[in-house]
Amino acid sequence: MRTEIATLGEFGLIDHLTEGIRLENESSLYGVGDDAAVLAYPAGKQVLVTTDLLMEGIHFDLVYTPLKHLGYKAAVVNFSDIYAMNGTPRQITVSLALSKRFSVEDIEQLYAGIRLACEEYKVDIVGGDTTPSLTGLAISLTCIGEAEQDKVVYRHGAKENDLICVSGDLGAAYMGLQLLEREKVVLRGEKDAQPDFGGKEYLLERQLKPEARKDIVKKLAGAGILPTAMMDISDGLSSELMHICKQSHTGCRIYEKEIPIDYQTAVMAEEFNMNLTTCALNGGEDYELLFTIPIADHEKVLELEGIKVIGYITKPELGCALITRDGQEFELKAQGWNPLEE
Amino acid sequence: MRTEIATLGEFGLIDHLTEGIRLENESSLYGVGDDAAVLAYPAGKQVLVTTDLLMEGIHFDLVYTPLKHLGYKAAVVNFSDIYAMNGTPRQITVSLALSKRFSVEDIEQLYAGIRLACEEYKVDIVGGDTTPSLTGLAISLTCIGEAEQDKVVYRHGAKENDLICVSGDLGAAYMGLQLLEREKVVLRGEKDAQPDFGGKEYLLERQLKPEARKDIVKKLAGAGILPTAMMDISDGLSSELMHICKQSHTGCRIYEKEIPIDYQTAVMAEEFNMNLTTCALNGGEDYELLFTIPIADHEKVLELEGIKVIGYITKPELGCALITRDGQEFELKAQGWNPLEE
Repeated sequence: MRTEIATLGEFGLIDHLTEGIRLENESSLYGVGDDAAVLAYPAGKQVLVTTDLLMEGIHFDLVYTPLKHLGYKAAVVNFSDIYAMNGTPRQITVSLALSKRFSVEDIEQLYAGIRLACEEYKVDIVGGDTTPSLTGLAISLTCIGEAEQDKVVYRHGAKENDLICVSGDLGAAYMGLQLLEREKVVLRGEKDAQPDFGGKEYLLERQLKPEARKDIVKKLAGAGILPTAMMDISDGLSSELMHICKQSHTGCRIYEKEIPIDYQTAVMAEEFNMNLTTCALNGGEDYELLFTIPIADHEKVLELEGIKVIGYITKPELGCALITRDGQEFELKAQGWNPLEE
Repeated sequence: MRTEIATLGEFGLIDHLTEGIRLENESSLYGVGDDAAVLAYPAGKQVLVTTDLLMEGIHFDLVYTPLKHLGYKAAVVNFSDIYAMNGTPRQITVSLALSKRFSVEDIEQLYAGIRLACEEYKVDIVGGDTTPSLTGLAISLTCIGEAEQDKVVYRHGAKENDLICVSGDLGAAYMGLQLLEREKVVLRGEKDAQPDFGGKEYLLERQLKPEARKDIVKKLAGAGILPTAMMDISDGLSSELMHICKQSHTGCRIYEKEIPIDYQTAVMAEEFNMNLTTCALNGGEDYELLFTIPIADHEKVLELEGIKVIGYITKPELGCALITRDGQEFELKAQGWNPLEE
């Protein structure tokens, strides 16, 4: 079944997609349907704003990305930026540019993914824009969130001797992407071939349905740990760590042997004949949290599951380096995911 | 001179474009450079959020739109939505998707236009995203503003007997577009031909460099008039008036002879053999304010320059109609600018 977008028109499509949306957060006063959404944040809260623009062919490939997953991921990635400031996402605006290739049913799928993410993270859709596109799909999301005054965590607060921590494990989303790209090439022209993803589900999930680390932010608050600096890992550990060090005017040392890597990631790297540490350092899209904490919180953080101490902050003169398993030092390089440089 | 974007890279380009940006508004705590911008609005203020996604070939044609003008217009149009809620724009995020066709110098022009608009309207650029695009240019802007509590003006507040008012004049931006489109066709293939825009400067300015009616919002407040409903005219008077009536559950009558139209618009409509009233009713992009006020404010509003009373709100059963110069009633139709239906 394929319904052309033209049969609904712009306003009809918006009405259709936003049908049944309710505002759940106290700070959401008025949502879709006027010139602007109206929010009210209580005194003492700071308002966080982050935005992403995702372009077809650059940020996603619809050959292997189901539209519902794409919508879910686009929203979650946006939420992740708010958590990375030690905040809570509350509202989102959703703008879509659609070429004629897309049917109403396609956009329902995409929107269903966004709505599912919003339900799971308790975020209200409060506005957006829907327009035609001459080619491809563009998705622009803006997330608004809140943080307690004086509890916002920036990138620039790391201090010498702070411990460097990461949540979860790294490199899996990147290996998931390699896997999808490989199967895409293998399957080209072979209509009935089925891709072989057995035993690699975790990698695919990390690439296609990532989650934002809401739980980590909550755990840290629960343990009374306020990170000195934090960001989410979207471009790769090396690149993000260098952002923190540059903005904090520090250097750092991280230990290769401490970088958390999942078993499936390791197996896949071997299969692809890729250097596992390089994948973990430079593979993007893990959306784990990278943060620094005062050394006084060392014992507290050791008790928290899902967080790994991987190194420490140094004086700026020492630069940023990885200490390998055999004790050698290698300068970190930002080979992060940066399509503009390709 | 043409510098490729790749020579700067994504982060280099962002640094270059945002160089020297200062935050001027008290509510802007932290801008570009972290996972999210940080804002703080005082108690008693409501926060307004609006977003636009503009696609090359749909919303703008770079053949006749200078990039600096495009940037200026994109920002102003966004501000206009905040004024239309009776608010003041304070922050904006700027996301750009750029194909390889664009040089650093091109994007400097575009960004210069956005920055100029921000300076004139005292809005801070606090964030954004810059990504590659496979084809064309996409611009996504999100504006955040503030309004006094209980002073936000929605579309849904119009009451029977309220007066319908518009600021400025209508149809000029549409005629400017027709003019540009005509010259584009005329000039195709004639390299040295110069377009003939003499005496039509106002139409071009309305199309290429519109302004948001900050002054009208201020005048109304100064006169102690709080509109019952308001929106800006981006899609055309008919379409917007029908939004207000639909959301307010009312009907309306407007008088053809009261619709404000500039002399150049009238001349151009004749030249193009177009119905002038149709242009004023359905031509979009004027970014004037359409609002309703209690009849008790009639005398007050008559004293305000640049505002015209064009009709009144009725019971819903009476529908929405135009009363022509010879006293006939015609039902209003939304033939607004709606590219999804083309």
